[in-house]
Amino acid sequence: MEANNLLRQINFIKEIDKLKLIQRRTKLFNSNRNENDAEHSWHLAMMTLVLAEHSNVPIDVLKVLKMVLIHDIVEIDAGDTFIYDTSKSHSNTDEERVAANRIFGMLPKEQAAEFISVWEEFELGESNEAKFARSMDRLEPLLQNTSNKGGTWAEFGVDYAKVYEKKKVIKDGSQAIWDYAENLIHESVEKGILKKNQ
Amino acid sequence: MEANNLLRQINFIKEIDKLKLIQRRTKLFNSNRNENDAEHSWHLAMMTLVLAEHSNVPIDVLKVLKMVLIHDIVEIDAGDTFIYDTSKSHSNTDEERVAANRIFGMLPKEQAAEFISVWEEFELGESNEAKFARSMDRLEPLLQNTSNKGGTWAEFGVDYAKVYEKKKVIKDGSQAIWDYAENLIHESVEKGILKKNQ
Repeated sequence: MEANNLLRQINFIKEIDKLKLIQRRTKLFNSNRNENDAEHSWHLAMMTLVLAEHSNVPIDVLKVLKMVLIHDIVEIDAGDTFIYDTSKSHSNTDEERVAANRIFGMLPKEQAAEFISVWEEFELGESNEAKFARSMDRLEPLLQNTSNKGGTWAEFGVDYAKVYEKKKVIKDGSQAIWDYAENLIHESVEKGILKKNQ
Repeated sequence: MEANNLLRQINFIKEIDKLKLIQRRTKLFNSNRNENDAEHSWHLAMMTLVLAEHSNVPIDVLKVLKMVLIHDIVEIDAGDTFIYDTSKSHSNTDEERVAANRIFGMLPKEQAAEFISVWEEFELGESNEAKFARSMDRLEPLLQNTSNKGGTWAEFGVDYAKVYEKKKVIKDGSQAIWDYAENLIHESVEKGILKKNQ
């Protein structure tokens, strides 16, 4: 039984290597090279370790790490959805659910159920852990874009109001980090790398 | 005080983006593209989540995750050392220690001390968590090389004895995973993708 579990787990470990091939719209810091989903997931995990103390409420850091490490694995099948693409739904699409069942379903039954449950909790965004994980997911591209003279905001003509709307959920995870992020957004407007009323 | 902590932490988060630019010798699965350290670290974290049940003894999974997420950050300054390069020392080199002090030292004092301590524990390899983390670090390239017709073994002329010597520490973390890995090494010899007596 355990040996069979291990073979299933090894196959899953090989399959998720494909996350390294899923390109995001955002670029690395001070760079023209696109970030991929595996790099992004690692960075969110590091941000979680470093910033957890700023959570509005005590959180289970291990749970948050699980969320950020696996949150984009469904994109192996479903592809990356740009956060400012208004033509697509951004949460729990049928395509992503099918992907979650296929990919996490490669794992032994109980583990598959746990991973799907963690992914669903992240997507729902209601638990304290999900709120903090989602604040990390919103903060990283904000830091990247400000390091890249506007990055995807400039490239895709995204204005202040849209950025503010997407980023303000950071507050649900951490008021302290939101205070920093809100200030960064306003500074970006002052510097001219984020436009108002486009 | 907390606001000052946050600024230090944000600067650290920006700095470690450079891990995405550190190329390893090993290639992605079934690929000719080199893996970078951030992708590698994410993969080890996922392997830890998936395989922790096979540890020889109960382990603190959060501690292991911290280890594998940060274990290569010193390479931002010190560069990647190929495991089969016999001309360089592989643990706690002065260069790596200076790098750890500089990079983790960007964090608030207590957090810097914690990260350096976790990195040292991993390097020492004596705790149960370090043993499991190191077994993950040895397993991933084994899986990659077998998916790439020998990968770095073929490319750099590494023979069975050297591979076996480096990989057998997997047993210290997990006998079950070592049973699988040892079999994979022997299969690689039978398939001709790993040579004996080169």
